[in-house]
Amino acid sequence: MKKALILLSGGLDSTTCLALAIEQGFKVTAVSFRYGQKHIRELEYAKKNAENYNVEKHIFINLELDKIGGSSLTSSFNEPNETSIPNTYVPGRNTLFLSYAASIAETLNIADIFIGVNAIDYSGYPDCRPEFIKAMEKTINLGTKKGVLKEISFVIHTPLINLTKSEIIQKGLERRVDYSQTTSCYFPIDNLACGICDSCKLRKAGFEKLNKKDPIAYKNLL
Amino acid sequence: MKKALILLSGGLDSTTCLALAIEQGFKVTAVSFRYGQKHIRELEYAKKNAENYNVEKHIFINLELDKIGGSSLTSSFNEPNETSIPNTYVPGRNTLFLSYAASIAETLNIADIFIGVNAIDYSGYPDCRPEFIKAMEKTINLGTKKGVLKEISFVIHTPLINLTKSEIIQKGLERRVDYSQTTSCYFPIDNLACGICDSCKLRKAGFEKLNKKDPIAYKNLL
Repeated sequence: MKKALILLSGGLDSTTCLALAIEQGFKVTAVSFRYGQKHIRELEYAKKNAENYNVEKHIFINLELDKIGGSSLTSSFNEPNETSIPNTYVPGRNTLFLSYAASIAETLNIADIFIGVNAIDYSGYPDCRPEFIKAMEKTINLGTKKGVLKEISFVIHTPLINLTKSEIIQKGLERRVDYSQTTSCYFPIDNLACGICDSCKLRKAGFEKLNKKDPIAYKNLL
Repeated sequence: MKKALILLSGGLDSTTCLALAIEQGFKVTAVSFRYGQKHIRELEYAKKNAENYNVEKHIFINLELDKIGGSSLTSSFNEPNETSIPNTYVPGRNTLFLSYAASIAETLNIADIFIGVNAIDYSGYPDCRPEFIKAMEKTINLGTKKGVLKEISFVIHTPLINLTKSEIIQKGLERRVDYSQTTSCYFPIDNLACGICDSCKLRKAGFEKLNKKDPIAYKNLL
């Protein structure tokens, strides 16, 4: 049985990505990161979903990104921002996540790495775009022993990258993904999704477009 | 004054690299990694050298590579190995190190990253070769906000990459690098360099070729 490693956050996208990898017949190992995110509760959902989908192994890695700062997701970051990329951007997050994934994948002899990045209904993060993923894949193949010796040809799978949020949800619903067990909010209030951050807005609009009810509760119903 | 970030291990190469960056007029921030290496003592030397060269800031990052395994440097790894790359190879180490460096560099507005990799007198690690460094540099520029917005063009400097070990030592000696404050051994015994690992062998041969005395002590004088 072919093996895959998936980056699992507990969010809507990575959970859908997990369902797709399972459907493709992969025996899945999941990896989740504690990186000082304020929405740390997402990892409880990651754990639940890994169990629901009977993943082979679930690895939790601590990353000290909060030490580095530079993001409103990990620190009290309040710099003026006039760019198209919001201050929820975490410097180099997916480069780090995928580097770690590559180290794990090489050790476990896994060629196929899944990540639920999306470059359509997204916040404009540079490390969610196809050109980044392509460069990262090349880097991994050049920077690992098994990649260079051609024992493994690493492939980064991004099945959601060109889908709209509603298309992602549609795919998930067709595969009976339980979205009540996912969380998308960057800044939860009293354990409820805030309803107003970029991530909540994209999620809500995705369900609305399908005329489906989002099964999670929101603090603000704006 | 232009700023640089340097990956500093306490070894001969990275200490020489530090001297070169300082000579080029950079105001240097150093980053060192605890990754479960058995030769953890190298970080004491990294600290000393950072102080000797008055680096602006020295950041220590914990990486859980020992959890991942796959290397004799971080675990009791004893798999048969018939490849040209020794079992001291740590899966994806420089990809991870440089990813972290990029996150820090972006946050601190630093464009220039120095790493003391060498692809001549080295152990054949894939992540020390020019083609890997080039791919990594591209990845960083595509995967960061400041890279994509062209606020920073990240450059990975590898001043030692095409030098022999004796040329590296020669450059260091000319710049009064104190090699007694460096360590290269992968598997120190009683706090002394073993004298027989790949890294010790390369270092010893480098000094011998110059007819210079290596100022550190060795357990085995083979």
